[in-house]
Amino acid sequence: MITGTLYGVGLGPGDPDLLSVRSDRLVRTARNVAFFRKAGKPGQARRIVEGMLADGANEIPMEYPVTTEIPLKDPRYNECLSGFYANCTTHLRKLTESGEDVVVLCEGDPFFYGSFMHLYERMKDHTPIEIVPAITGMSGAWTATGLPVTWGDDVLTVLVGTLPEDKLIEHMGRSDALVVMKIGRNLDKVSRALKATGRYDAAWLIEYATMPGQTVSRLAEAEDSVTPYFSIIVVHGQGRRP
Amino acid sequence: MITGTLYGVGLGPGDPDLLSVRSDRLVRTARNVAFFRKAGKPGQARRIVEGMLADGANEIPMEYPVTTEIPLKDPRYNECLSGFYANCTTHLRKLTESGEDVVVLCEGDPFFYGSFMHLYERMKDHTPIEIVPAITGMSGAWTATGLPVTWGDDVLTVLVGTLPEDKLIEHMGRSDALVVMKIGRNLDKVSRALKATGRYDAAWLIEYATMPGQTVSRLAEAEDSVTPYFSIIVVHGQGRRP
Repeated sequence: MITGTLYGVGLGPGDPDLLSVRSDRLVRTARNVAFFRKAGKPGQARRIVEGMLADGANEIPMEYPVTTEIPLKDPRYNECLSGFYANCTTHLRKLTESGEDVVVLCEGDPFFYGSFMHLYERMKDHTPIEIVPAITGMSGAWTATGLPVTWGDDVLTVLVGTLPEDKLIEHMGRSDALVVMKIGRNLDKVSRALKATGRYDAAWLIEYATMPGQTVSRLAEAEDSVTPYFSIIVVHGQGRRP
Repeated sequence: MITGTLYGVGLGPGDPDLLSVRSDRLVRTARNVAFFRKAGKPGQARRIVEGMLADGANEIPMEYPVTTEIPLKDPRYNECLSGFYANCTTHLRKLTESGEDVVVLCEGDPFFYGSFMHLYERMKDHTPIEIVPAITGMSGAWTATGLPVTWGDDVLTVLVGTLPEDKLIEHMGRSDALVVMKIGRNLDKVSRALKATGRYDAAWLIEYATMPGQTVSRLAEAEDSVTPYFSIIVVHGQGRRP
């Protein structure tokens, strides 16, 4: 029996037209399609490939046991997720060991802050795995602003809104271009840090980049709204240009 | 007469299978295809789409008048490139104003340290332009290492090898994950900065990511070799993982 391959297939920022040719082909021909989602929700990754799956494809939803109900710092959060990833691994490994290839749908790029990485770490020593890189959510976001993000010698720093405020401030003050991901309920803290470093007025907020509900606005004009977790803040670099 | 559209089409890191579905379609159906290259060379962007262009497509090579012959800091460098971009703009604008759509091939992502940005800035106020984001060269590079680049709250900093050594050191010492682009003749300086910040042993060097000549090695084992300009250094983050 030949062991099947696990494919970590990046889907890009959300528009199905922005899948790579390779990801598109793998998704359309897959016999087994696994994806993460919050219990009771369709799941963003699955939504991106709506209408693309082959007839009779075996769908394997992997439902997070917890998202924001337990604080990140609580040790139960880690325990809970660790058990979840171990269960997913067991299930996927049974499939690959029976000779089946499995495509795991990954929002954005699989190796850039992705959930798939937790399966990858647990399976890479005993399962053949192929990763298909993809357009990151942040590329989708800066493209949506209509302004290039980095010029010449610009330094780009990517931060996540879950960082402590002092750490955000430390990095925001030193970088030319900035991307802040995982905004959602961290918006107030991120905005304070941007103000403290003089970057607030130049910041853009992009929600649902490249997707039907896309919004692009100056952060200063958008701050009172409720912002989804996957929204992204961009501050563009102003470096050398002939 | 309807004005044509200028398309800034990201090609991704180099493997034609990693173009997005949209970029692939635009490239295959384009009547006018423009691309940058060094005089006398085929050009990397043009090479990526070899075999994909439609019969009779009008090819428009835009040849840099200078690459490394004049130092970056010499004012003649800027003057020379500025004149070049103005000429390209004039030529492309003539085409779009005659009703022709033009696809400009962009290595990597068009808005991320790309040459296309210089045309975009000069044309965006009077020409309809659409940008297609793409997989960055750095995504291709970290995927090639087989190791995820950012976990949990990791900070990622993207630097270019053309930065002064003290600036490289300042940023390398503070970030979790690192990407250094535009290596080439800056390799010695970048290596010294990585050593000064204790990051050297964890650094990987990726040449020609996702392309036929791809090499992936620990920087410490590769440093004596001559490295192309488009090689990339990656230091992976080690952040939170359940």
